[in-house]
Amino acid sequence: MSTIYLNGRFVPAEQATISVMDRGFLFGDSVYEVIPVFGGRCFRLAEHLARLDYSLRETRIAAPMDHAAWTALLERLIELHGGGDQSVYLQVTRGVYAQREHAFPGEQAPTVLAMTRPLAAAPSLPEPVACITLEDIRWSRCDIKTTSLLGNVLMTQQALEAGADEAILLRDGCVWEGASSNVFAVLGEVLYTAPKGHHILGGITRDLVVELARQHGLDCREQALDAAELARADEIWLSSSARELTPVTRLNGRPVGAGVPGPLVRTVWAWYRSFRQQFMR
Amino acid sequence: MSTIYLNGRFVPAEQATISVMDRGFLFGDSVYEVIPVFGGRCFRLAEHLARLDYSLRETRIAAPMDHAAWTALLERLIELHGGGDQSVYLQVTRGVYAQREHAFPGEQAPTVLAMTRPLAAAPSLPEPVACITLEDIRWSRCDIKTTSLLGNVLMTQQALEAGADEAILLRDGCVWEGASSNVFAVLGEVLYTAPKGHHILGGITRDLVVELARQHGLDCREQALDAAELARADEIWLSSSARELTPVTRLNGRPVGAGVPGPLVRTVWAWYRSFRQQFMR
Repeated sequence: MSTIYLNGRFVPAEQATISVMDRGFLFGDSVYEVIPVFGGRCFRLAEHLARLDYSLRETRIAAPMDHAAWTALLERLIELHGGGDQSVYLQVTRGVYAQREHAFPGEQAPTVLAMTRPLAAAPSLPEPVACITLEDIRWSRCDIKTTSLLGNVLMTQQALEAGADEAILLRDGCVWEGASSNVFAVLGEVLYTAPKGHHILGGITRDLVVELARQHGLDCREQALDAAELARADEIWLSSSARELTPVTRLNGRPVGAGVPGPLVRTVWAWYRSFRQQFMR
Repeated sequence: MSTIYLNGRFVPAEQATISVMDRGFLFGDSVYEVIPVFGGRCFRLAEHLARLDYSLRETRIAAPMDHAAWTALLERLIELHGGGDQSVYLQVTRGVYAQREHAFPGEQAPTVLAMTRPLAAAPSLPEPVACITLEDIRWSRCDIKTTSLLGNVLMTQQALEAGADEAILLRDGCVWEGASSNVFAVLGEVLYTAPKGHHILGGITRDLVVELARQHGLDCREQALDAAELARADEIWLSSSARELTPVTRLNGRPVGAGVPGPLVRTVWAWYRSFRQQFMR
């Protein structure tokens, strides 16, 4: 993470500083994306930029550039860091203003940050993980990918301290998503994941998994399970740009299904990896 | 706001910058206080520092200094800005780390920011305002004074665009607080305000109003009203450090009571102002 893009310039990381008056700092008034780079190219870039547009529109932060400019910026950033597999982080805040006031101030240029770090595309099915369920304490607009993330931070930490890798979040008794992932569950022949809406972030990897499952004829339903249904699932998986497709083999201290990655995650992983390999070719 | 305290130094505002890797910027992983200064001294300082301690403890951000050190820092900041009436802003973040990861990273010094701006203690009852009610979209730990404030920002903006000054927030059909204030309502002889708990920030001015009301023998109940009760209230007030005690004379476009500040707000304002004047003496 040697060179960071900040407001039109590439600067050494230690010089990448922002004013304390930036609304990203004072209010978490800011949105972001994390984009995986495989073989030197952004994976599902159009989908990530569309989601960034959505977050900007819903928060009414001015779009700082168009897709062509984002693409050029990202290509330059990736190239500066030697191509290959990376994880790019983009953040856009409402900008820097003279006064701290909750309401939107007058128009000002947004703050734009882009940085990257190494990532290794998983060569085989990622190692299984343990999860706990927690009551979702986040706000009710989880569809906006904002940096107002304290709820996610606290729940992730609670999961780690319980010996788990991720928290699966319940709201009104239903399973929506993880603190930084989407959740899939297999019951019998059916694959479930929560529907899009205000309770979940529409994950790019989630969408790809749904797409691949349907292409291959799986019965994939976008429907929220309740906690009891999750507890008796044959398989549970997490998806995210960083986790790709990760099996969950322990939930709240008990084995999921047979306690090892199930047959369906292996199958879907193979479809996913093949899709990713084709992209990298 | 010419001079800002940042991590042990007083610097000109334009030099008050933080790393983009600060968790306050990346995650809203940070807490704050706004403390009114009257006659050169922090009003209800012990209460504000106790609430800061609470926010730090609940987020497990290390306390950067003890109350004596906070007091000395604030005195110096206020003096540098000529004493009198000011509004001091304090923010403490979990600090700057090499990697962006949701979970708490290892121990690091928190980032500490303190800045101030002019404030005028209201000489007489503040001008009445209009409010709208909105469904509360915030997280369920509103008792933590965090900078993950996007929900508050969006609801404040929505209120302004509806021609109102503040949003009064409903959750599960009950009235909890405003987007940046606490809410009081008078029905007959009784003064109501929402009880403390995870749904509201325990306002320092709110507590003072409750204290003064009880000292003077008012029937003040910490009980959440429902939306219908709020709609037929004789009086509605907002309290906050910046608003002090502000009457609400329009709610959702309709007059509150007689549509002018009621008798009780005038009485309680007089008690509040007298308390403030004694402090300033």
